[in-house]
Amino acid sequence: MRAVDIIMKKRGGPANPDGSELTREEIEFLVGGYVKGDIPEYQVASWLMSVFFNGMTFAETGILTDVMLRSGKTIDLSGIQGPFVDKHSTGGVGDKISLPLAPIVAACGVKVPMMSGRALGHTGGTLDKLESITGYHTGLSVAEFRDYISKTGFAMTGQTKEIVPADRLLYALRDVTGTVESVPLITASILSKKVAEGADSLVFDVKCGSGAFMKNTEDAERLAQSLAGTGKAMGKKVVALITDMSEPLGRMVGNFLEIEESMDILEGKGPADVTELTLTFGAWMVVLGGKAKTFEEGLELCKKAVSSGKAMELFMENVKLQGGDAAKLLADRGKRRSPHHAELRAVADGFIESIDAFKTGLAGVYLGVGRNRTDEAVCAEAGMIIHLRKGDRVRKGDLVMDVYGKDSASLAPALALLSEAVRYAAEKPATLPLIYKEITAL
Amino acid sequence: MRAVDIIMKKRGGPANPDGSELTREEIEFLVGGYVKGDIPEYQVASWLMSVFFNGMTFAETGILTDVMLRSGKTIDLSGIQGPFVDKHSTGGVGDKISLPLAPIVAACGVKVPMMSGRALGHTGGTLDKLESITGYHTGLSVAEFRDYISKTGFAMTGQTKEIVPADRLLYALRDVTGTVESVPLITASILSKKVAEGADSLVFDVKCGSGAFMKNTEDAERLAQSLAGTGKAMGKKVVALITDMSEPLGRMVGNFLEIEESMDILEGKGPADVTELTLTFGAWMVVLGGKAKTFEEGLELCKKAVSSGKAMELFMENVKLQGGDAAKLLADRGKRRSPHHAELRAVADGFIESIDAFKTGLAGVYLGVGRNRTDEAVCAEAGMIIHLRKGDRVRKGDLVMDVYGKDSASLAPALALLSEAVRYAAEKPATLPLIYKEITAL
Repeated sequence: MRAVDIIMKKRGGPANPDGSELTREEIEFLVGGYVKGDIPEYQVASWLMSVFFNGMTFAETGILTDVMLRSGKTIDLSGIQGPFVDKHSTGGVGDKISLPLAPIVAACGVKVPMMSGRALGHTGGTLDKLESITGYHTGLSVAEFRDYISKTGFAMTGQTKEIVPADRLLYALRDVTGTVESVPLITASILSKKVAEGADSLVFDVKCGSGAFMKNTEDAERLAQSLAGTGKAMGKKVVALITDMSEPLGRMVGNFLEIEESMDILEGKGPADVTELTLTFGAWMVVLGGKAKTFEEGLELCKKAVSSGKAMELFMENVKLQGGDAAKLLADRGKRRSPHHAELRAVADGFIESIDAFKTGLAGVYLGVGRNRTDEAVCAEAGMIIHLRKGDRVRKGDLVMDVYGKDSASLAPALALLSEAVRYAAEKPATLPLIYKEITAL
Repeated sequence: MRAVDIIMKKRGGPANPDGSELTREEIEFLVGGYVKGDIPEYQVASWLMSVFFNGMTFAETGILTDVMLRSGKTIDLSGIQGPFVDKHSTGGVGDKISLPLAPIVAACGVKVPMMSGRALGHTGGTLDKLESITGYHTGLSVAEFRDYISKTGFAMTGQTKEIVPADRLLYALRDVTGTVESVPLITASILSKKVAEGADSLVFDVKCGSGAFMKNTEDAERLAQSLAGTGKAMGKKVVALITDMSEPLGRMVGNFLEIEESMDILEGKGPADVTELTLTFGAWMVVLGGKAKTFEEGLELCKKAVSSGKAMELFMENVKLQGGDAAKLLADRGKRRSPHHAELRAVADGFIESIDAFKTGLAGVYLGVGRNRTDEAVCAEAGMIIHLRKGDRVRKGDLVMDVYGKDSASLAPALALLSEAVRYAAEKPATLPLIYKEITAL
């Protein structure tokens, strides 16, 4: 077997411009060989570009995912009572859904082994939000991860170096060879990590709009279909929802601010949009885990987990288990704000026409909510409280946002971006759907 | 400027799936940077694959050619009276056209600075044929090359390491990354070397058929158009002819055998097909060199160069200049044959329907005419004399070919291939055109 023949098979020629489907042996030879150091980067690079152009079938993507998965260790959840269901979001602004979701679903009897990421660019990161809780640590050992799942039904950790090393290698190569934006490669990258953490079923939040990786519904649907189809080809049950990310989600964008809003959701008093999405994902996870027969039944169980206080109780138990100072968290709630504060006030009468999620996220990077490089620190107390949102009636001079920065210098550039992000209209704008599409592969 | 942005510009995205045209600065940054060692192979590899899919305009291909050209030395022909016109063939079986062509055109007052290649795979090589003349050497210094052109109007040399080093680097990378079969990359590879040798105008023989690199007329026309369009974009006058290579050209396939047939052509007694092609290319070169106003006038001059004996005289002078033993050459003519001999005899009555050029060329590799690896030696005395050709009447048992091998073991596999190559028919087959298309960019 020669790498160049595998490249040319995917590349195709005049008789088959779309290339041909690769076998497991071929993908193993090329990608497995690359991870072992047997196949040089330049051959993988030209193969990645041929995949960018010619795509991969769900079966091929499943094989690639499996080959990547087997490049490292997987989390062994054996001995713990399942079912195990996890959720992944492609990332957004104000997207704190994972935080209240995990305890809600755990309260319904479904285990959630959650491995999350960090803020990068305009999108926030679950780990950064959790670490804004004083003392909370997310770098769990496998023993801790197993232990906490056993105790409260969920645990929150980051990806370790031992998990899917192939993804780090491939991602670094894709980043410099112009092959990031490929649906099957994105799919394999996401799925390999999710399958490695031991979940039987998965829900995906494929975000769509200015604040998302996928800017339009067509691209988002291609990725959602690929995640569902590939997951199914690998024997997993998958539900993928395409959700709106043209506006920031909820009223809070920040690290500790989003912990607060998550607690609001867990107490049944969160904003409508993020509450609805959290409960929708929760309902699907409860169905996938076999604890409800229908979506409606799952939804009822999730609402009950909130109204009974059980979900909040598990959340606080997890905070303690993962080293967080629960008393300080409760004391900080509603009070822990950066002293570097500014107000964004309305410049017109009428209605808020829209608040651009991308620009809001970029403002967050200035403020210290997020970061541009993976080695930058974030600020727990920075962020935005959005008082007036899309469709709200507004008068010139009204307070639109409270803005908190890591330092005083960060406020001016953030405010400039936020002024651009907020648009005003004389008429009330039409509302966009919160969920564009549900794709199920059961 | 970042290499990844240049790759992505060529690659394109959902809004521009065909990518965008690169600037001179971008191509210089990427390819020039690669040659200098600043850009890693993996980035060039993914860029090459994006070029495979999205192509390049003639302007871009011209810039790439120019950047490659300027990676090394060019031959300085200043001080020698021009015009300088050269010819390039994409390679075939029995294709000895360059050998009689150079002295014919030189006899018409056009200088031919000819840089040729070696046999590889089923295709023959001009340098190997020339070196079958005892003593003839093709590794000329620039001073020798200039001197011989001044004296006889043409010289025959190989490519040196100093000429277009970028082509060797890029070709080696294309070979292992599945990016050989790209019309703009092939164009830049061919043109950069031709322009480096100092020609003002160029004729191209783009061969088409089983024995050629391009198997069908569509692919051949794409390459011919690209060579003409890119050459023109670089300020060169170009004529490209698409010619048939489904049958071997002429009656002789071999190294010394093709020298003999070239001398036959120079004496006006060569086979009709190869004579016609030689005179056609010659006529165009005389027109491009400004020594004739019309093709017909050029053709007359070329015929006169043959009938007057002037072309043959220049050929023999070149043999002496480049170290060849002219007396031995004349004595060897018609006699120098390998002692390892076999006959291919007809197995049916009727007509020769076709002789497959590709299989004939592969048989030549067994016999020692060609080679599979660049470090293999070839045999001067090996080859085939084709007595009966497509359309000839045949009776079972008639001698179709005399076959000469480098050793006795080489004869059996060659005969097996040649038996497959020759097909018989009850009816006389239709003749194919010798020249499919002429593309001129003047």
